Amino acid sequence: MNGAESLVGTAAAAGVEVCFANPGTTEMDLVRALDAVGGIRPVLGLFEGVCTAAADGYGRMAGRPALALLHLGPGLANGIANLHNARRAGTPLVCLVGEHATWHRRSDAPLQTDIEGLARPASAWVRMSSAAAEVAVDTAAAIAAARSAPGVATLIVPADCAWSEADGPAEVRAPTPPAPVADAVLEAARRVLAGPAPVALLLGGAALGERGLRAAGRVAAATGCRLLAETFPARWERGGDLPAPLRLPYFPEHATAVLAASATVLLAGARAPIAFFGYPGVPSDLTPPGTPVETLAEPGEDVVEALERLAGALGAAPAAPAPAEPPAAPAEPPPGPLTPAAAAAVIAAGQPEGAVVVDEGLTLSADYIAAAASAPRHTYLGVTGGAIGIGLPLAAGAAIACPDRPVLCVQADGSGMYTVQALWTHAHEGLDVTTLVCANRSYRILLEELRRAGVEEPPARARALTGLADPPLDWVALGRGMGVPSERATTAAELAAALERALAEPGPHLVEMVL
Amino acid sequence: MNGAESLVGTAAAAGVEVCFANPGTTEMDLVRALDAVGGIRPVLGLFEGVCTAAADGYGRMAGRPALALLHLGPGLANGIANLHNARRAGTPLVCLVGEHATWHRRSDAPLQTDIEGLARPASAWVRMSSAAAEVAVDTAAAIAAARSAPGVATLIVPADCAWSEADGPAEVRAPTPPAPVADAVLEAARRVLAGPAPVALLLGGAALGERGLRAAGRVAAATGCRLLAETFPARWERGGDLPAPLRLPYFPEHATAVLAASATVLLAGARAPIAFFGYPGVPSDLTPPGTPVETLAEPGEDVVEALERLAGALGAAPAAPAPAEPPAAPAEPPPGPLTPAAAAAVIAAGQPEGAVVVDEGLTLSADYIAAAASAPRHTYLGVTGGAIGIGLPLAAGAAIACPDRPVLCVQADGSGMYTVQALWTHAHEGLDVTTLVCANRSYRILLEELRRAGVEEPPARARALTGLADPPLDWVALGRGMGVPSERATTAAELAAALERALAEPGPHLVEMVL
Repeated sequence: MNGAESLVGTAAAAGVEVCFANPGTTEMDLVRALDAVGGIRPVLGLFEGVCTAAADGYGRMAGRPALALLHLGPGLANGIANLHNARRAGTPLVCLVGEHATWHRRSDAPLQTDIEGLARPASAWVRMSSAAAEVAVDTAAAIAAARSAPGVATLIVPADCAWSEADGPAEVRAPTPPAPVADAVLEAARRVLAGPAPVALLLGGAALGERGLRAAGRVAAATGCRLLAETFPARWERGGDLPAPLRLPYFPEHATAVLAASATVLLAGARAPIAFFGYPGVPSDLTPPGTPVETLAEPGEDVVEALERLAGALGAAPAAPAPAEPPAAPAEPPPGPLTPAAAAAVIAAGQPEGAVVVDEGLTLSADYIAAAASAPRHTYLGVTGGAIGIGLPLAAGAAIACPDRPVLCVQADGSGMYTVQALWTHAHEGLDVTTLVCANRSYRILLEELRRAGVEEPPARARALTGLADPPLDWVALGRGMGVPSERATTAAELAAALERALAEPGPHLVEMVL
Repeated sequence: MNGAESLVGTAAAAGVEVCFANPGTTEMDLVRALDAVGGIRPVLGLFEGVCTAAADGYGRMAGRPALALLHLGPGLANGIANLHNARRAGTPLVCLVGEHATWHRRSDAPLQTDIEGLARPASAWVRMSSAAAEVAVDTAAAIAAARSAPGVATLIVPADCAWSEADGPAEVRAPTPPAPVADAVLEAARRVLAGPAPVALLLGGAALGERGLRAAGRVAAATGCRLLAETFPARWERGGDLPAPLRLPYFPEHATAVLAASATVLLAGARAPIAFFGYPGVPSDLTPPGTPVETLAEPGEDVVEALERLAGALGAAPAAPAPAEPPAAPAEPPPGPLTPAAAAAVIAAGQPEGAVVVDEGLTLSADYIAAAASAPRHTYLGVTGGAIGIGLPLAAGAAIACPDRPVLCVQADGSGMYTVQALWTHAHEGLDVTTLVCANRSYRILLEELRRAGVEEPPARARALTGLADPPLDWVALGRGMGVPSERATTAAELAAALERALAEPGPHLVEMVL
């Protein structure tokens, strides 16, 4: 058994089932070990940013790490933006990066670079193996690190550590459970909620799962507190009879207005709300000055158990099923050209029970999130770290983790181009992903930023750097070019029909929504 | 004048003419400054790896830096692989990266990351501005650094340093010329060449320009030494009556066999030859043990002037024009399906006088390079750092630097997918680039590596990670989807006809060569 085989054996024995990969020469022994050892399914991405985001989507849905296998420093670099998103999402993920043979590194060969330096900014844990005999133990440590924090663990494997003789696999220690919230903290939260002043309970992380939401709903029913959701949740169970917290808006003035309606903000698994960007004269903190921010559970603490204890301490009634409202008759799609609001309404109305919805819709997201609050039960996966180009591959990873659930990917066009190669993986793996491209043919968010800064009519160079209309991207051709059946919708009725067709058939589809 | 305007003013006054950009919110003041100050043309890339490789192509052809403007850490990360290639090419390039406002960084907003840490591995020079008043001076230092080494200089500009009031532009000091080679070194080289033992003169860097090649040709004519070219030249003048050094082969056993034919290797602007990858039992050094490696000029020294002095010291005759050979009658394209050798021959036979040829053909490159030695005068741009995904955007940058020269891009399919977004820039800017996609529908080089390791028939998982055939990428659809007129060639005759059509028309074209 060589080092590569000890790595694959360690990972397979620990329950790792999928490896999202784009290997090169230095990773060929790891590739051969996938065949020799078995137990791990390789999924090819045609760009490393596809691999890392797919591993993120898989990890968010499966709750356990996949591998991302990348080629040297440049391969890692191509995957960093989506590793950054995974780090912000707190997704368990093991990133494997090949490296030159230890004795070859002194030659400074063309592909040589500082892999550890590149890995650190987007990883919670980084290690480079220094001998074949260490690879199994290093792999076990990487998996344990990825599961315990949870987060991104990057293991760098020199080629000779992969091909040289090693001992057998190593055992991975059980993940550390999240720390419980202390009684005193819980009691302080109870007092805030039981007081007379209006409280906003800001939910994040696991609090946006089913158990967390039902407990939060009991707290709200007992105290009248307002339920908010963090702006960029990694995973959010939504729809059906689940309590529907209001998502904290993106732009600082809107978020601050929402928070200003409450006398206290109580954090449950969410970070204290801060602005996405700094703007002249706008504070980083979104909570109005003088509004206290209290904490029930920090990210990483057991927020679900804390919410359930809190509901009990408040004497809240058990969660009752929501009154069965008769399903609304499907609204007629509005006539005329497709608008973002109409598209959002059509998607929310058309999404099936049990869907996983990946939202990199950007300027369409607010409309969609509002519309989908009353959709059937579904799982929402959001952008977390703000690095664009996550949607298409995140959908691929979610579909591989959940082969029995339909996946919808609401995808902005500018961001979609970043990892457009993921469409090939949708086709290659036959994934049941329906991609809905928001083709507004611009970096619309930047035009909004310019408008907010007082630039209503951008001058020539600013227009040149925000426009995607010359020539317009033909997403139908791009989708078909990668083997995904694709069509175009220019009205709400066309979108509704195209979405219905796509959902009726297994396998990937793409609809270009011309907005 | 704000910091952003002082930056653009400094760069424009120093002769910077182009900015390859994919900006975000934190770069909006830099975008507005491009309009307010003028003098710099923005070119939008739909992914940052497009921007950095385009700036590399521009810098190689123009001999002076362009700007690459990127959005925060993730935007930089997306550009790193091609910055790595630019660093290995020694291309003058100024990479501008936006950063959160200085006071916003303590909030650890979603997009926050360690930009300096990410920048260092691929940059020769890194600085972050800490106040608006410093931005102009920092810009001048970045440009000076990029021109003097030459190399990649990365300047990080926090948003408040861009939008806050600053003084005027700063002056950029003149670039340092390359250091001359010492007389004693030259004399030692002369003695080696004048001796009886066969010498291989290995040319790299500026030695592969017209003046360097002509001087090397005189040295070879006077001494009988063999002329070799480094394996991955950044820029190589070729064809016509220029001396045609043999390119040192890629695989170590082939390269060592070539070097073994000479008693001494003399380096002229090239590094001592080392293997691209380490293999079990194969030394990193390609020169056979016992063969001395002497140096005429290190990379960065004035190798051209050294070669000219050397030719003089050897009493070499002035360069005589090569005997005018009658142009060979164009060979009939071979019948039957297109092979790599046939495709290489058709391209070399069809390329026009004065072409710039970007070669990311990988497994087609050796055939092409051999065939094009007798092509009309042209400039060859190679891969340098081994990070794949450079070809399409490098061609864009070269075309913007040389609007009057046709650009051919010989592009492997797997690598081409990495930065396929560059085709949109070809169309958007109306660039005269003809892309020739080597559609072998696999990572062929990895199959060769497996074969060299004794795996003739890869097992299932190795096949899954090296094959691009299921579904086949439809490059005609991909090209048209981004606005590039595209067609397919399955025989040598179809390729010859398609290439002729593409070259006869201005603007971008793509030909999928099904191999």
